[in-house]
Amino acid sequence: MKLLCRNLWKIAASFSLALCCYGQTEASRAARSWREKHEPAILAEFSKLLEIPNIARDLPNIERNAELIKSMLERRGVATQLLRIPNAPPVVYGEINTPGATQTFVFYAHYDGQPVDAKQWVSPPFQPAIRENRIWARSSSDDKAAIMSQIVALDALKNEKIALKSNYKFFYEGEEEAGSTHVAEILRKYKNLLGADLWLFCDGPVHQNRQQQIVFGARGSMGINLTVYGPKRELHSGHYGNWAPNPAWTLTHLLASMKDIEGKVLIQDFYKNVESYGPLEKKAIAEFPNLEQALKDELWLNSTEGGSRLEERIGLPALNLRGLESASVGTESRNVIPVTATASLDIRLVKGMDTKVTTARVLAHIRGQGFFVAENREPTEEERKTHSRVVKFALSDGYNAARIAMDHPMALKVVSAIEASRGKVLRLPMSGGSVPMSVFEQELATPLIIVPIANHDNNQHGHNENIRLQNLWDGIETMAALLTM
Amino acid sequence: MKLLCRNLWKIAASFSLALCCYGQTEASRAARSWREKHEPAILAEFSKLLEIPNIARDLPNIERNAELIKSMLERRGVATQLLRIPNAPPVVYGEINTPGATQTFVFYAHYDGQPVDAKQWVSPPFQPAIRENRIWARSSSDDKAAIMSQIVALDALKNEKIALKSNYKFFYEGEEEAGSTHVAEILRKYKNLLGADLWLFCDGPVHQNRQQQIVFGARGSMGINLTVYGPKRELHSGHYGNWAPNPAWTLTHLLASMKDIEGKVLIQDFYKNVESYGPLEKKAIAEFPNLEQALKDELWLNSTEGGSRLEERIGLPALNLRGLESASVGTESRNVIPVTATASLDIRLVKGMDTKVTTARVLAHIRGQGFFVAENREPTEEERKTHSRVVKFALSDGYNAARIAMDHPMALKVVSAIEASRGKVLRLPMSGGSVPMSVFEQELATPLIIVPIANHDNNQHGHNENIRLQNLWDGIETMAALLTM
Repeated sequence: MKLLCRNLWKIAASFSLALCCYGQTEASRAARSWREKHEPAILAEFSKLLEIPNIARDLPNIERNAELIKSMLERRGVATQLLRIPNAPPVVYGEINTPGATQTFVFYAHYDGQPVDAKQWVSPPFQPAIRENRIWARSSSDDKAAIMSQIVALDALKNEKIALKSNYKFFYEGEEEAGSTHVAEILRKYKNLLGADLWLFCDGPVHQNRQQQIVFGARGSMGINLTVYGPKRELHSGHYGNWAPNPAWTLTHLLASMKDIEGKVLIQDFYKNVESYGPLEKKAIAEFPNLEQALKDELWLNSTEGGSRLEERIGLPALNLRGLESASVGTESRNVIPVTATASLDIRLVKGMDTKVTTARVLAHIRGQGFFVAENREPTEEERKTHSRVVKFALSDGYNAARIAMDHPMALKVVSAIEASRGKVLRLPMSGGSVPMSVFEQELATPLIIVPIANHDNNQHGHNENIRLQNLWDGIETMAALLTM
Repeated sequence: MKLLCRNLWKIAASFSLALCCYGQTEASRAARSWREKHEPAILAEFSKLLEIPNIARDLPNIERNAELIKSMLERRGVATQLLRIPNAPPVVYGEINTPGATQTFVFYAHYDGQPVDAKQWVSPPFQPAIRENRIWARSSSDDKAAIMSQIVALDALKNEKIALKSNYKFFYEGEEEAGSTHVAEILRKYKNLLGADLWLFCDGPVHQNRQQQIVFGARGSMGINLTVYGPKRELHSGHYGNWAPNPAWTLTHLLASMKDIEGKVLIQDFYKNVESYGPLEKKAIAEFPNLEQALKDELWLNSTEGGSRLEERIGLPALNLRGLESASVGTESRNVIPVTATASLDIRLVKGMDTKVTTARVLAHIRGQGFFVAENREPTEEERKTHSRVVKFALSDGYNAARIAMDHPMALKVVSAIEASRGKVLRLPMSGGSVPMSVFEQELATPLIIVPIANHDNNQHGHNENIRLQNLWDGIETMAALLTM
């Protein structure tokens, strides 16, 4: 830890020199000054948080995360408690009541992370490492960076005795990456605590050109695992090949029937009722720098799905094939007809779509391809013997999209506060990535807006997740602006 | 080892009572009598052989297998040597010269096995276990059982002083499951040793009804791994889903274009020049018991590819999808766009097809689907940036099919010898599984025939490979018949 901090200090010091001249408000100046003087301590505290594994189903470690964050808030004088329902990760909740304040803002972030395939990481996912001016660890960007930047912003404002103007609440969820299955129940149970004028969702990346952006909505999300069944046991592909049906081929045909090679989803009514962007959203997108070619170069891509720019494409629903598995490939290949073949899909929903309706449409499509569907269970021997195409459909709970008007008074207030502190922002009508905004919207009837701080190339959800130090530093100033609006 | 043999003795003893009354020749009576008296010793010796891991690329263990088999033959007075070329598993070669003999037969078997996924096995693949009247271990059926049965048959004939009538050679290969890539070179180098009137390939299973069968040919085999490339790094499926091309979807479409849902291969000219069965082959197939419904029940299948019976279907070429892999599925699913997606294919060829011609047709098909193909290498950054669909095509060496006329004099001699010993046999025009007969046919211009002994439900190539004890016992009698023709 000591060594890490010493090395970092040198890296960070060289970086600070490169900072340019935005930061025009008292709050952002205070945030920068504090951060510049305390980088080693900030990183030491952040590392402690990143060292705790945080996959939502790993409840013992989730509790360790929650307890640590609670103690971090309490050290800043925030009245903190854990909001609990049985068998679910707790929400870390905190409150700052400001005398005379007329408005209340809630900071949302999540402290859980995606699963890790540790052998694919350059440095272990739960041993934070600093290389190339970045911190490498699971959740370094998604989403512990948001929590850390809020806490450091509190320190900075307190040190300079800058008064908060509003009431603030903190709501740190522990199972966002697992689909936020319990959050609605928690919101209902603790509704009386959660009254507010605006929720600030601090999750996701800033723009690819590193400019601060504000996001007015987020796609919804749901996951499906499809397992197609073949013979009861693995068969020799010579002695039975051409006779025994192969579940991997069958799966291939099912998948190909769901989406064409150009990226258009072929499931009937998949796009029905989708709310398209209006003039405000289109204008905001047009103001974005066009990074298409730079992104394609960075990602070694010759072309993209649909052909239009990223900001438009993520305004549409997506059907993504996030994984395939059947028997073995490469040097482990065996000449067999596999017993099963599994595809894992995730769907991104936009406004106008509904998870239940979309589930029904996907199921109807699969049945339309001649499949017997076992929903969320293994098919029986009898079912496999009496149907030629048998698939297990395993649904992960999801949630709908949410999106507020770009000219909502609260949205204008946030844009104004951040622009005063950090300069011109980009306004994205909707994030491609999902946060369970719709659940909050539905339970609390409060507007929500997203203020992300992470770099776009943070590998969130993948191997070697990281956050650029400069994004963390900028994030502290952004949070200071939000804490003084 | 001791314990294993004691338990086995009880199982085997109960089984012997059930043996029925074929075994009309002196040789087969001698084989049975010897075996009944020496089951524990036979199984002890077999276990020693099965304990040595035998994946062809694991050369140190391959050498241990070869040395053990050499010593086993030498103990029976067979003049034995290892036929070697550099960096390849040796062939264990043995000779018995019979004074006055006018004919020479070569027993072919292989001592290497398919790779194992040990965690899928009920008992470890290289710790032979006896359960349910079977021996469970990698290569217990495929193909060390053939070697063991030949060696025990030699013991039995020697004990009863039954004279061999012909010269015999033994040719035990060590890389059949890895595609027999070096066997042609070995055949050329040692051609002078290998003159014969007939090769007896002892590999593969007997019929599903457990009746002895003789097989007049074998499909050829080749393997292909296809890897489709997406973005340079794993991307968050929310922030990039719908924009970044997904290699798993692309692979799905490529695969679906290669074979229709009914099992017909769609690659142009894939079936061109295929030699169909004539009246003799059709008649032989018609004599087979129709086990379609029983097999479907056993394998939990409602229907089969193409709809016609297994014996006919394996007379056609096959394109099998033996594995799929991209990112993760199930509880390990992550919301990502994968970097690559890989499919592993194996092709079974019949007479009239050629591995090189088939390779060219598959390549032409892939290119026809709009792919840039990197053959047997990684595509470069530049290639990925300048082509929308990029695939690595990794070919495993293969070999063609071989098949001899069912009325060939040598074929008639084998049928007659085995029928005298073991009763009526089934005559299969061609095995669905592959042995590199065509390589031998091409290098040596000697006819070949297959005499298998393993049970059909031996899980060869899959997890939990096994041989029924009764199949091993029957195999010894079959080999005794062949050693006295």
